[in-house]
Amino acid sequence: MTKRIAILGASGYAGGELIRLVDSHPDFDLAYLGAHSKAGKTLGSVHPHLPGADRVLGPNDPAAIGDIDLAFLALPHGASAEPAMTLLDNGVKVVDLGSDFRLDTTEQYEAVYGAAHPHPGQLGKWPYGLPEFFAKEIVGADRVAAPGCYPTSAILGLGPLHAAGLIGEDHLIVDAVSGVSGAGRGAKEGLMFGAVDEGVAAYGVLTHRHRPEMEQALAALGSAEPTVIFTPHLVPMQRGILSTCYAPLKPGVDEAAVNAAFETAYADTPFVSIVEGPPNTRWVVGTNRALVNPHFDPRTGCAIVVVVIDNLLKGAAGQAVQCANLMLGIEETAGLPTAGWMP
Amino acid sequence: MTKRIAILGASGYAGGELIRLVDSHPDFDLAYLGAHSKAGKTLGSVHPHLPGADRVLGPNDPAAIGDIDLAFLALPHGASAEPAMTLLDNGVKVVDLGSDFRLDTTEQYEAVYGAAHPHPGQLGKWPYGLPEFFAKEIVGADRVAAPGCYPTSAILGLGPLHAAGLIGEDHLIVDAVSGVSGAGRGAKEGLMFGAVDEGVAAYGVLTHRHRPEMEQALAALGSAEPTVIFTPHLVPMQRGILSTCYAPLKPGVDEAAVNAAFETAYADTPFVSIVEGPPNTRWVVGTNRALVNPHFDPRTGCAIVVVVIDNLLKGAAGQAVQCANLMLGIEETAGLPTAGWMP
Amino acid sequence: MTKRIAILGASGYAGGELIRLVDSHPDFDLAYLGAHSKAGKTLGSVHPHLPGADRVLGPNDPAAIGDIDLAFLALPHGASAEPAMTLLDNGVKVVDLGSDFRLDTTEQYEAVYGAAHPHPGQLGKWPYGLPEFFAKEIVGADRVAAPGCYPTSAILGLGPLHAAGLIGEDHLIVDAVSGVSGAGRGAKEGLMFGAVDEGVAAYGVLTHRHRPEMEQALAALGSAEPTVIFTPHLVPMQRGILSTCYAPLKPGVDEAAVNAAFETAYADTPFVSIVEGPPNTRWVVGTNRALVNPHFDPRTGCAIVVVVIDNLLKGAAGQAVQCANLMLGIEETAGLPTAGWMP
Amino acid sequence: MTKRIAILGASGYAGGELIRLVDSHPDFDLAYLGAHSKAGKTLGSVHPHLPGADRVLGPNDPAAIGDIDLAFLALPHGASAEPAMTLLDNGVKVVDLGSDFRLDTTEQYEAVYGAAHPHPGQLGKWPYGLPEFFAKEIVGADRVAAPGCYPTSAILGLGPLHAAGLIGEDHLIVDAVSGVSGAGRGAKEGLMFGAVDEGVAAYGVLTHRHRPEMEQALAALGSAEPTVIFTPHLVPMQRGILSTCYAPLKPGVDEAAVNAAFETAYADTPFVSIVEGPPNTRWVVGTNRALVNPHFDPRTGCAIVVVVIDNLLKGAAGQAVQCANLMLGIEETAGLPTAGWMP
Repeated sequence: MTKRIAILGASGYAGGELIRLVDSHPDFDLAYLGAHSKAGKTLGSVHPHLPGADRVLGPNDPAAIGDIDLAFLALPHGASAEPAMTLLDNGVKVVDLGSDFRLDTTEQYEAVYGAAHPHPGQLGKWPYGLPEFFAKEIVGADRVAAPGCYPTSAILGLGPLHAAGLIGEDHLIVDAVSGVSGAGRGAKEGLMFGAVDEGVAAYGVLTHRHRPEMEQALAALGSAEPTVIFTPHLVPMQRGILSTCYAPLKPGVDEAAVNAAFETAYADTPFVSIVEGPPNTRWVVGTNRALVNPHFDPRTGCAIVVVVIDNLLKGAAGQAVQCANLMLGIEETAGLPTAGWMP
Repeated sequence: MTKRIAILGASGYAGGELIRLVDSHPDFDLAYLGAHSKAGKTLGSVHPHLPGADRVLGPNDPAAIGDIDLAFLALPHGASAEPAMTLLDNGVKVVDLGSDFRLDTTEQYEAVYGAAHPHPGQLGKWPYGLPEFFAKEIVGADRVAAPGCYPTSAILGLGPLHAAGLIGEDHLIVDAVSGVSGAGRGAKEGLMFGAVDEGVAAYGVLTHRHRPEMEQALAALGSAEPTVIFTPHLVPMQRGILSTCYAPLKPGVDEAAVNAAFETAYADTPFVSIVEGPPNTRWVVGTNRALVNPHFDPRTGCAIVVVVIDNLLKGAAGQAVQCANLMLGIEETAGLPTAGWMP
Repeated sequence: MTKRIAILGASGYAGGELIRLVDSHPDFDLAYLGAHSKAGKTLGSVHPHLPGADRVLGPNDPAAIGDIDLAFLALPHGASAEPAMTLLDNGVKVVDLGSDFRLDTTEQYEAVYGAAHPHPGQLGKWPYGLPEFFAKEIVGADRVAAPGCYPTSAILGLGPLHAAGLIGEDHLIVDAVSGVSGAGRGAKEGLMFGAVDEGVAAYGVLTHRHRPEMEQALAALGSAEPTVIFTPHLVPMQRGILSTCYAPLKPGVDEAAVNAAFETAYADTPFVSIVEGPPNTRWVVGTNRALVNPHFDPRTGCAIVVVVIDNLLKGAAGQAVQCANLMLGIEETAGLPTAGWMP
Repeated sequence: MTKRIAILGASGYAGGELIRLVDSHPDFDLAYLGAHSKAGKTLGSVHPHLPGADRVLGPNDPAAIGDIDLAFLALPHGASAEPAMTLLDNGVKVVDLGSDFRLDTTEQYEAVYGAAHPHPGQLGKWPYGLPEFFAKEIVGADRVAAPGCYPTSAILGLGPLHAAGLIGEDHLIVDAVSGVSGAGRGAKEGLMFGAVDEGVAAYGVLTHRHRPEMEQALAALGSAEPTVIFTPHLVPMQRGILSTCYAPLKPGVDEAAVNAAFETAYADTPFVSIVEGPPNTRWVVGTNRALVNPHFDPRTGCAIVVVVIDNLLKGAAGQAVQCANLMLGIEETAGLPTAGWMP
């Protein structure tokens, strides 16, 4: 039976991708589009690349939504908590693409975001929406916190090693590059074409908020609690994240063990594939796929794992739909593209 | 009933887009993939962004294709004529994305290509595959010559004016910019990232082979035979053509007449829309859409018409599928995307 | 003798290039840097790519400048008039890179800018700073209005034809593409990397303010007053303008006459060269050069002229320095780069 | 006294930058340009962005060069050894930008390049041309092996820590991204605009030839022999390398010790600066500068050091000129740009 869907935060980049996916989903009916400053505008003026230009955006207000089955919240940090609770009270399932419900404890939340959570009792109650590792909690759930884009790539790269017990006591490193769309659509001097094109820079060195999320998710997958150093970089392209992950392995771990860990983890994952050579982000842009490329370095006993995703799809809107499918009892792959765009 | 489809020239950019479209088409079954130097390779090694990586490409040989209903030929100039004739003899419908059958006379063909046509009797017998103006000839046809990418944009911009009798004796100008994918996938020094990025250049000034095609198609739409000056430029982006067309109008033609010409021409076209402000190519990249933006200049009595298309879709693979739908009695819009990719 | 130079509007893109040029100019001493919102900041924080990071920007205030010989004003439209008059009163020569003093009559100015000029008596008294055509007025002048970037390219392409009397009564067309730096450094949603990259669009169709400037400058070069249709486009690159100019020629004009017009015009111009094939903007980016590539179309009797410049150098800061050299009695080419950047 | 300079391999990207630098160098006279397949062509046809277009390239043959003081060899791997020895025999100083003389032992050389060195006696006799650490050997030398682009950035990031004795037994990681120009100018399918634009990929994971060079140079700077994991990535931009280096520090090392190591190393280096926030490659593109941004992570006891250079200048042509200056007794900074290009 067709499910009625609402999208709050429809005017941003993730919102636009959600519209595209929901519009073409065989089991979804896009019933409501909400926005903040763009409320009242037509879709054509906000996302001129999408059909249905005459649709008008309403406010990001649960009271305006009407009768729906599930809502996607693609809102700035801190803006999800209130509408999420209202929607849940109204019996609407919620996928939050933001970071309001990802961390499990008030201590972590306050350390990372520097403020008290408005609904601290919710922390720890939202399944983490990475179906490759947490499908059991997601299936049938009424609320899911979709992962950040960087953590998605990092956990896909390091999770199999940790779950297989191959990671030792040393810190892990996630060195990632991202296209610009991850920084959102709002006008900022540092994101102008003139500032971004033809240059690369790191940012948030040792301070990025996605690092605690990585550590928490990894801790849930194995018996130890790995420490992560995370360095994100901005590169001049629209979409795509590539994370190169470095993991010192326990003594005696060899290449076969590394490969077996990945083969076990991704034996049945429709969107995650192991590839033999280093993948290009373009191979997955436009899709919900992730490509994982593990290496073992006998000189140092380390694994090096390269992971590519589309930050707006597997890293945001696509993964949210994947979670929604599982929450609603629909085929996990329904409505999710696997053919990319080249050139 | 599902139609069995073959694609020859599957390894190029247009070939890749044809695969993507045919794979997802509700009425098509992709039965054969042919290639030249990539024959014998897997699809995954040739188009790593597409699913079905294990499929193996065969040769560009009609004898190898088996039982199919329609073949798309995405081959270099001069390479279509022989397989096309063989396929037609075998009762297979053919859409040629190349230029072998676009010009209507041997004189034109020889003037443009500097060689005799191998099947001169075919010239003038292939409907020109621009459904917005030539649908009558395309519906049910067994052979169609799909237009070049630049002519598609130019005729969509100038055709309505000429069909409405508004164009006078003066020459028309088509000043166009194209993304790099129009130049194909083969390695050339001038198409390297280092050569293309951050620069713009004109090419083929007064000599580009698409100019005669534009003039021929325009002549078919009105009572005069307009002369065209065509200047293409290469810009540093993957996809998209923007053509700015300049047409001196007959004395007394006013803005209302210009607008009426476009409204008449595009009243019922599912893929072509008139827009009020200048469109960005990104609004159509990834789709089979064309956006047409006409202006009237009272100072000079000229129309200025800006047209944007995706050169690989409405300018190649998408238009070919649109034609195939009409040839096979399928809904014109079947399997053709209208939602684009941003950012 | 070394000249003391001030730059007002030093924080923008043209300001940054002026700093780079003046710093390395053999006869200039950079005595003052002024800015608006960035006043009080260090150069290192505003232009991290430039040496002398400890220099502090002052206000855009003539009273703060001290004893200087010449000031470059790289200010927004409307902001030049007052400081310019004060500086001239103080005996300081002024090159205005803005548009305050380019148009010659109050009628033109009010028609284009929709407001009265604060010093209408100045209009018509500022030499137009395109040395290739107006050097006589620029040499030794105390004030010069440097041309806009698009008019520079257009006049270099059409001026020789008009000066030679080859242009007839028909309208001229200037179809131009520009890199993004021409739109300035301020944060705007339409200039974000996500909005600009991988797309092309026209803007200001029939309404761009540079069109009257082109017509005025062309009128000064010949006996007729040509009408111009001007269509600018934004392309995804940082720098560079390419203008493709279309000029219907008087009956009987042939290719030899066209070529002679350009050879005459550019026989002794150190920065403008005629090239045989279509030039790439990258050949001039980083330099004060312009490359001009004329074609004659015997089918239509038109000239097609392709011109490339660096919009921030020959189209702004470089041309301003070229003018300043002439105003100050220095070698025209002093301090101006002719070696570009590739790749 | 002006030095007469030859450039062999003048047609490539590094060759083009050498021409630009030598042309504008106050103490250099560019006496000879050599090329391989482009011998006999004019400079204008090979590097249309450079002045002196009429200069004709000769062969890459020492016998054709005439009387010169120093030759820059910008040749493919393996092509430098023979002309270098001939030039040295003729009393010409040589800076080799290639990799023929960088490794110090035949064992290393054969392990990395899979072939015997043609002049094994030379290995270990060529000073390593990174003046910030090896100036003593470079000053007055008659031969210098200029470092690779990646090793330059890596050693600038890790050298100070190792020289100060802060690095322990654990492996170091160098995770680097590079613009496309590092891969050279020859046409390859993988370097086409269509293949590179809008995507990122790692390459040479665990196998890149620059890793042994990094380990050798680091070993020369401290008492231990660090092991390096090196992962280069290609990003869609023309120029620039950003290396993010990860170094586990000896127990007890703190932030002050890290900062002191860098301040000591770069107290007097004209081209290397320490910056407080993460630098963008654009801040150094067009210059011979390197910006070094060290961080200390108290959670893991690691240093994270971000380094940016222009791969064609500080990573190739600029560094070669810096070495030549020292070899010839000229001021180290002569002829080397410190003002970059933005936007």
